[in-house]
Amino acid sequence: MTAQEVERGRFVRQQNRFTDRITADGSSGYPAEAGRYRLFVSYACPWAHRSLIVRRLLGLEDALPVAVVDPIRDERGWRFPDRDPVTGAVFLSELYLASDPSFEGRYTVPCIWDTVTGRLVTNDFPTITTMLETEFTALHRDGAPDLYPEALRPEIDELDDLVYHTVNNGVYKAGFATAQDAYEEAFDALFATFDRLEERLAGRRYLLGDRITEADVRLYPTLARFDAVYYSHFKCNLRRLVDYPNLWAYARDLYSVPAFGETTNFDHIKRHYYVTQRNINPSGVVPKGPLIDWTAPHGRGADSGA
Amino acid sequence: MTAQEVERGRFVRQQNRFTDRITADGSSGYPAEAGRYRLFVSYACPWAHRSLIVRRLLGLEDALPVAVVDPIRDERGWRFPDRDPVTGAVFLSELYLASDPSFEGRYTVPCIWDTVTGRLVTNDFPTITTMLETEFTALHRDGAPDLYPEALRPEIDELDDLVYHTVNNGVYKAGFATAQDAYEEAFDALFATFDRLEERLAGRRYLLGDRITEADVRLYPTLARFDAVYYSHFKCNLRRLVDYPNLWAYARDLYSVPAFGETTNFDHIKRHYYVTQRNINPSGVVPKGPLIDWTAPHGRGADSGA
Repeated sequence: MTAQEVERGRFVRQQNRFTDRITADGSSGYPAEAGRYRLFVSYACPWAHRSLIVRRLLGLEDALPVAVVDPIRDERGWRFPDRDPVTGAVFLSELYLASDPSFEGRYTVPCIWDTVTGRLVTNDFPTITTMLETEFTALHRDGAPDLYPEALRPEIDELDDLVYHTVNNGVYKAGFATAQDAYEEAFDALFATFDRLEERLAGRRYLLGDRITEADVRLYPTLARFDAVYYSHFKCNLRRLVDYPNLWAYARDLYSVPAFGETTNFDHIKRHYYVTQRNINPSGVVPKGPLIDWTAPHGRGADSGA
Repeated sequence: MTAQEVERGRFVRQQNRFTDRITADGSSGYPAEAGRYRLFVSYACPWAHRSLIVRRLLGLEDALPVAVVDPIRDERGWRFPDRDPVTGAVFLSELYLASDPSFEGRYTVPCIWDTVTGRLVTNDFPTITTMLETEFTALHRDGAPDLYPEALRPEIDELDDLVYHTVNNGVYKAGFATAQDAYEEAFDALFATFDRLEERLAGRRYLLGDRITEADVRLYPTLARFDAVYYSHFKCNLRRLVDYPNLWAYARDLYSVPAFGETTNFDHIKRHYYVTQRNINPSGVVPKGPLIDWTAPHGRGADSGA
């Protein structure tokens, strides 16, 4: 999860520090090789969640091993439940400082470590997923989907621009705001986009049509956290996700796909936000609710007869 | 609103200090006389809300004038938007200290001031409403309902014991808990009672049958605040009020009665909790949602053809 600052009541997300790329042809100095890299994630973090979904959809589980940090973070940042067996790190910070001893930002997930050079290649979450989709193709499973098809990239990128600013990062702008006007601006933009998405999903199963793409991967992690956390904790409470018939059925449709559902860890998600973000929830008490049935029939697509 | 303390993570409500009674025959030294007493309330406070509802149902508006404090409270306690024209007070504390210079508790609403002796008679919210119902009968409007009928008192009192501990005060126990187990205990008890009330209201229009009683007056203020505040701010989020068909229709049925609806001030309610309780909401930002239609047809009772 990338770091946050609040400037005059308004939330501003930190730039990602490590932006090297792993390439199919190795021209970047980091060739796409099975077993060479290690992906660090938190199940709580929506940005890391994207990379877990893509890794699973593309069948990269063996080629790109993953290490999961503990959901509860203190002032020392993300830590491993046990020492990471490959890098020997206890705290994620060790990997950042080994790569750049002068690094002073926050230590964020997702990030990818190169076991050969012993340094971080990237913590740039928007490019990690597309890099796995376009540079790791030789390592994809047979029949892996093309999540970022050339012909659809302009539309995916355009939609992502809206979804990132008003939804993915929009909930953070609302939740971390300490000024009423900054909060309301983020709130209004978020629910305006939800209205547009609700309408868009009336006419198609997924955001770009009848196949899952990178656009769905980017929207889903925010939807999965919405009613459980963002609605109350981030004050995004005009309506719940379950109050949008299309958006909610779409979210359950994705959840029924193992790459989405099995990477969604509501326990880690709730404990992370409510225990770690004491600036918003001083008591650290974790809500027991809400009661939501993610496995209810979604009624969308060919399989369900819709 | 009565004060609160947290002992080992568990919320404990302060005892009410002033417990004298106004009586019909004047035997207590405080005879029920039109215009003699002054009721101090906050629209935000559920305990004060009860007294506003009863005053209106019984037509005591002229006999018992009311003064409303500002919804936002700082370390000096409740204050008046302008100096109270009758007592001259700017802060409610002035009335408490004039009545008892040694008073060291929190200054709470509702409370009743006697303009003849110049002191507080009572801040004991559970007895204020029944006192208005049973000792002010000579001042009631023609045709005023009997909200506390002799024959129903045992059942009303028994139900109130459950509703007070698990619902009215239960939401505070959940919201002010700083220990996970204390929170979960309050949460479980609250929603167990909601289940019982949901079932009870399937078979009758009001809690005691076909007429509004003190039992409805005591439950309603918590329901009115539930989705707007308690669901998120107090983490009472198993389900929303609107997810209970009978309880939600019953709440709207009551809201359609002016004594309930016109004393329900959502603006004061939201601003009070979110701005004043910085121990729960450090930013003081007030959520814009939720979007709830309290005026939707409730479909209950003779008037609605149910």
